Amino acid sequence: MKKYYVGMDLGGTNIKLAIFDEGLAKAGERRLDTEKEYGSQHVLERMYEGITGLLEETGISVSEVEAMGIGVPGLMDIKAGVSRFSPNFPDWEDVPVSSWLGERLGIPVYIDNDARVNLYGEWYFGAGKGMKNLMMLTLGTGLGAAYIVDGHMLYGAGGSANEFGHMNMFREGRPCNCGSSGCLGRYVSAVGMVNTLREKIGEGRTSIITDWVGGDYSKVTADMLSEAYDMGDRTAIETLEETGELLGFALGTAMNLLNPEMIIIGGGMSQAGERLLCSTRKTVEAHSLKLARDACRIVTARLGDAAGMEGAAAYARLRHEDVTAR
Amino acid sequence: MKKYYVGMDLGGTNIKLAIFDEGLAKAGERRLDTEKEYGSQHVLERMYEGITGLLEETGISVSEVEAMGIGVPGLMDIKAGVSRFSPNFPDWEDVPVSSWLGERLGIPVYIDNDARVNLYGEWYFGAGKGMKNLMMLTLGTGLGAAYIVDGHMLYGAGGSANEFGHMNMFREGRPCNCGSSGCLGRYVSAVGMVNTLREKIGEGRTSIITDWVGGDYSKVTADMLSEAYDMGDRTAIETLEETGELLGFALGTAMNLLNPEMIIIGGGMSQAGERLLCSTRKTVEAHSLKLARDACRIVTARLGDAAGMEGAAAYARLRHEDVTAR
Repeated sequence: MKKYYVGMDLGGTNIKLAIFDEGLAKAGERRLDTEKEYGSQHVLERMYEGITGLLEETGISVSEVEAMGIGVPGLMDIKAGVSRFSPNFPDWEDVPVSSWLGERLGIPVYIDNDARVNLYGEWYFGAGKGMKNLMMLTLGTGLGAAYIVDGHMLYGAGGSANEFGHMNMFREGRPCNCGSSGCLGRYVSAVGMVNTLREKIGEGRTSIITDWVGGDYSKVTADMLSEAYDMGDRTAIETLEETGELLGFALGTAMNLLNPEMIIIGGGMSQAGERLLCSTRKTVEAHSLKLARDACRIVTARLGDAAGMEGAAAYARLRHEDVTAR
Repeated sequence: MKKYYVGMDLGGTNIKLAIFDEGLAKAGERRLDTEKEYGSQHVLERMYEGITGLLEETGISVSEVEAMGIGVPGLMDIKAGVSRFSPNFPDWEDVPVSSWLGERLGIPVYIDNDARVNLYGEWYFGAGKGMKNLMMLTLGTGLGAAYIVDGHMLYGAGGSANEFGHMNMFREGRPCNCGSSGCLGRYVSAVGMVNTLREKIGEGRTSIITDWVGGDYSKVTADMLSEAYDMGDRTAIETLEETGELLGFALGTAMNLLNPEMIIIGGGMSQAGERLLCSTRKTVEAHSLKLARDACRIVTARLGDAAGMEGAAAYARLRHEDVTAR
């Protein structure tokens, strides 16, 4: 009998999932809307529908599935498989993802932080293949991070390590919902960049983006900033450069603290590429230890938005092998 | 035949060394002046004298010594056993500590960063016994750090991880000899605290310490600041509080990034105790993720200045067992 692993990436907009054979070659893939506005029970049902639909499409029986891995945003209890809190999901508290899906499907279901699952993907299949010291940032609506240190994914005492988005950059800065202020993620993220743009407009600067969104800045996207940048819009250029510079200070500190071989920048905002990373690289060059920065490359993610699914399957296999080896 | 391990702590002022049996029980200890002003060759000779003297005193033959570990400040190539650069040692560049001592003694000699060796000490024998996620800061003239993450001492790709003293705290701040500015160690260290005091005096503040040192602030020590603090000296109190607060922001970030169970504060400056750490704790409470800070205790080191020797011996045994197991 063949053995399969399912990897799922639970996002605020889409649920992406794929099924892989033992060698982690993809046998099928599926995407569906999360419909998070209907609450956690509905999202669990959607996840279940996703899996049963995928199995039907591929003709694989659930009895052939060894385990399933899911990347979930927010805080969670990895051991218990419970998603504690996810900032972008309404009605979402202590959701027993692993037990609910596991009991319905009759297979082990493992959850992990979405940034970590992305890094598992890039580590097994993508830009960081075979490396022992590797960091990944996912720049989307917010900022996620994960590290592999000396060959091990870092979890920390309670599994809450990697909260790089809460690195304190300013003693008095933008308030953060963690209770602190001046956290990196309030600046280096899609939301953060839009706020920086807004601040500049508030100071009397102008931007073509104002016309595009009819003055409603909640409609501004990271892509718009890149487009305005390419058109020579000064305010957009400054916004991307300042964001990139602050990211550079943070990555310089990360290099000094963790000495990685590579830092992978993923997530939707990484599409900005060198528009963002040019000033990041300059800042790292000027503000990190030579030994650390010479050892480290900053690259963009290779797997795109498939990293989550692929990484979740690799994670499921890792966890499952660990359990079955005992 | 009995087996022994030698642990040495190479400091700018003293060389401290001790010999331990297989179970890491201490069999003898010795301290001698480093005499670093005579250059690296002289310091190597002093280290050699230290060992031969200790063996003579304890009646242990060098053939009974399995291996030796040394904690060395500064940058180094751990694998090659070469101390690359040490900021407080004159005429010190690419010093082949392991091969020079190893050949003369006929035993394997392993070197590591002094902060890491201190943490090995506190991990094996001290405040962090048995923990899997543990961080140590050594606050002396400068700021050293080491972490144990998920049960492994962190080294990073080139062995240069843990440079916590170069965490960027201010975009524009005090210049650092790393080429950057605003690095944590320029503020949170004995030298940093004295500079903070000096800045305050420069701004027209007064302090009893000015009288103690006859206006020569190069004579100010961390102990003097504590003494003036206890006498109610406002400027000393503010200096310690502001230093502690900045340390709190940095430790909050460390908790968010690494999620340790414990952070151990060691080094000479840790004698300031709660005078420093009271504002550190307050700041951590207000500026770190609840999940991370609730999991972590901040304590002062337990082994005092013996941590270096004890840790170096434990490190030697670890490295030696790793080699002999192959």
